[in-house]
Amino acid sequence: MKTFTLPGTELVVPNVVLGLMRIAEMSDDDVRHLVRTARDAGIDFVDHADIYGGDHGCERRFAEAMRLTPSQRAEIVIQSKAGIVPGAGGLRYDFSYDHLVGQVDGSLAALGTDYLDILLLHRPDALVEPEEVARAFDDLASAGKVRYFGVSNHTPGQIELLKKYVTQPLVANQLQLSITHASLIAQGVSANMAGEDQAVDRDGGVLDYCRLHDITIQAWSPFQAGFFTGVFLGSPDHPELNAVIDRLAAAYDVPPIAVATAWITRHPAQMQVVLGTTTPERVTGAAQGSDLPLTRAEWYELFRAAGHLVP
Amino acid sequence: MKTFTLPGTELVVPNVVLGLMRIAEMSDDDVRHLVRTARDAGIDFVDHADIYGGDHGCERRFAEAMRLTPSQRAEIVIQSKAGIVPGAGGLRYDFSYDHLVGQVDGSLAALGTDYLDILLLHRPDALVEPEEVARAFDDLASAGKVRYFGVSNHTPGQIELLKKYVTQPLVANQLQLSITHASLIAQGVSANMAGEDQAVDRDGGVLDYCRLHDITIQAWSPFQAGFFTGVFLGSPDHPELNAVIDRLAAAYDVPPIAVATAWITRHPAQMQVVLGTTTPERVTGAAQGSDLPLTRAEWYELFRAAGHLVP
Amino acid sequence: MKTFTLPGTELVVPNVVLGLMRIAEMSDDDVRHLVRTARDAGIDFVDHADIYGGDHGCERRFAEAMRLTPSQRAEIVIQSKAGIVPGAGGLRYDFSYDHLVGQVDGSLAALGTDYLDILLLHRPDALVEPEEVARAFDDLASAGKVRYFGVSNHTPGQIELLKKYVTQPLVANQLQLSITHASLIAQGVSANMAGEDQAVDRDGGVLDYCRLHDITIQAWSPFQAGFFTGVFLGSPDHPELNAVIDRLAAAYDVPPIAVATAWITRHPAQMQVVLGTTTPERVTGAAQGSDLPLTRAEWYELFRAAGHLVP
Repeated sequence: MKTFTLPGTELVVPNVVLGLMRIAEMSDDDVRHLVRTARDAGIDFVDHADIYGGDHGCERRFAEAMRLTPSQRAEIVIQSKAGIVPGAGGLRYDFSYDHLVGQVDGSLAALGTDYLDILLLHRPDALVEPEEVARAFDDLASAGKVRYFGVSNHTPGQIELLKKYVTQPLVANQLQLSITHASLIAQGVSANMAGEDQAVDRDGGVLDYCRLHDITIQAWSPFQAGFFTGVFLGSPDHPELNAVIDRLAAAYDVPPIAVATAWITRHPAQMQVVLGTTTPERVTGAAQGSDLPLTRAEWYELFRAAGHLVP
Repeated sequence: MKTFTLPGTELVVPNVVLGLMRIAEMSDDDVRHLVRTARDAGIDFVDHADIYGGDHGCERRFAEAMRLTPSQRAEIVIQSKAGIVPGAGGLRYDFSYDHLVGQVDGSLAALGTDYLDILLLHRPDALVEPEEVARAFDDLASAGKVRYFGVSNHTPGQIELLKKYVTQPLVANQLQLSITHASLIAQGVSANMAGEDQAVDRDGGVLDYCRLHDITIQAWSPFQAGFFTGVFLGSPDHPELNAVIDRLAAAYDVPPIAVATAWITRHPAQMQVVLGTTTPERVTGAAQGSDLPLTRAEWYELFRAAGHLVP
Repeated sequence: MKTFTLPGTELVVPNVVLGLMRIAEMSDDDVRHLVRTARDAGIDFVDHADIYGGDHGCERRFAEAMRLTPSQRAEIVIQSKAGIVPGAGGLRYDFSYDHLVGQVDGSLAALGTDYLDILLLHRPDALVEPEEVARAFDDLASAGKVRYFGVSNHTPGQIELLKKYVTQPLVANQLQLSITHASLIAQGVSANMAGEDQAVDRDGGVLDYCRLHDITIQAWSPFQAGFFTGVFLGSPDHPELNAVIDRLAAAYDVPPIAVATAWITRHPAQMQVVLGTTTPERVTGAAQGSDLPLTRAEWYELFRAAGHLVP
């Protein structure tokens, strides 16, 4: 497992991390097996959110299953998120002081820990008041409840607005990225091309921005074809892509999921891949992509096979 | 009426202002009634443009109907715009020194005043030479003809280019914004989503940029569904949205137009709503939305009811 | 021929330059005639790329046909590009140190010269490591192999990322631009308009960015309707545009191609037009657009006639 010091922090982190959004219904044994498998693969970083599994459900499930001692807890990086509020009529977002601080308290209680290593703002609140976020972060930091802060699904402009008041470095931006859902990479390859959907800017150039400012991109849904529409690995909807993946997997003697992982870890932005699977073998397989040295030719072949234009 | 000191100026302004683009054919009495109604509601800020009602037609109509004494004129903020040139074959834009200075002189003559409080560049001139704009602004400012400057329909990049030479602060950016025509808010909520039109960047992140740089956004066509395609209020094309508006209007005991106004004034960017109506009752109704304290849940419910995705 | 000192350099350059991507199969005489015609028109700037005509084919063809003495070579500005790698399955990009330095060496050998005046990174490499580019540029500059550096088809974010490490000024950005393929101008005219394709950001505001940072835009495919889909000049697909072009050409007593050229040279960004033609008469005709003083009304009429919205 390749590790690196997360810029802006003193944390040494793996470039493949374990997302726990789907563990709410798992047994203690299954959770322990999943986490143990990840740890064995070198993954000592878990990704939570207050809303995963309902009201802190996955955080609580994790804590109850793992029953970590303080020293065990200190061995891992625990990241959680706040800012999304489910409701009867649909979602809303809330970055108010009270909501953020309250949700972190809820996460700490559910996780049975004194601190989060990293707190991410889950999705940009259209009604954000950056002064309030700054106040919340200051209080969470000074109370020792959160060590580092970041965002998720944020554009450069939204981050700049936060930074007008937030003094802590924003160390991560968790964004949807897979070989097939790759606009944040593909747009820049084909900018300024009339009539090409791939040329359409959907993120304000967030990849270059994050690289420029040493904000680590965490790729969520790394194997999803679209927005929770199913995985592309093995899907008959992506025959050309899977053919290339399978060929490279055979050549490198790894499972296909390792190649899909490596397509992200190979990128020089030094991203982290957030696994969403609850299947231990997939975790092991994906971990094999942590340091797989895809060549430029292979990386671009995968990119083209996913349907992206290389003009 | 909620008021605030317009950042970059010493003007105390209301967050709902009276746009006068449609008064060219109104009688003196009707103009006076409209303006008096606005003043009674606390609206002491009028929005003009050289081209409204033809060649300074609305500016002249306003002046002839109001016949303001110097002290009456000093009580209100008069904003006008220049830069659009109608022509037989279509519009063009012109930010040349001669055009800008000449149009301001024309506006001052038509308005019967010595100065504009604010001059906006109406639409970005593709052939802009920022050095010329700077020279025009300098001369207009030093001659006492214009107190403050701003833009309309400008992107962050266009503003940055102007600021390379313009030394006065650009205090306002007038942009189309309503619950339904809300890309400048909605894009940021769904950035980086493949296949979603809402994710498409159409403005370079102008909302965050203006907040970051203390440029006040003025929302034009605040009740229009699209680009002058008709209002959404009461329209059978927007049943879900109107149902929510009507319910909230009843709950707050205000007319529906106040809720539509409040959706904009509630936003923490502290925008101004530019009314385009010539109906006094609508002005009164909209003014009731100046300080209506929509909750986050209500604001997001309106947003979703207008068809925007909250992923 | 209008000339100007290319910002960031000591080069005095024409605003119309000769692109040599299509000379691979031309005879010595034809190449010499083409270049002589350009020189007679004041065009002393040629645009190459390593991949034009295959592996340095056009560069070699140029050198073999011209057999320039050192003093003749010093009379002209030679620009080339690197970074695109053709392959059996499609293109890829490669901004690695070894590739860039190797390709420049190949270009120098093919061109029979000791130095390139300008080297452009041809298309953005998704796997760019700006530290490597910086190292390559440093070594190429200190070895005297390249005098100045620039990019092609790059967005503002990509340029900013390069500038994080590259210390030389990036003096040019070669981008596709013609009256019909004009998103980089047209988007800004109609930003924030829902439902209008013209409002869609495809380049991150590269025009304003380049003007702001004194990066000269070089317009490639200046007469192409789309992405190598054929020229619009004289095309029955563009009757309205050609009618305006022909009328203006007659009025100014120049060929239509001069008007199409002037639409670009008239823009205050002081761009260069990169001709792709191998027909000497077209070069002569285009050169007549170098300093043609289109009025604002004429420029906008051409813009509207090409189908762009001026709202």
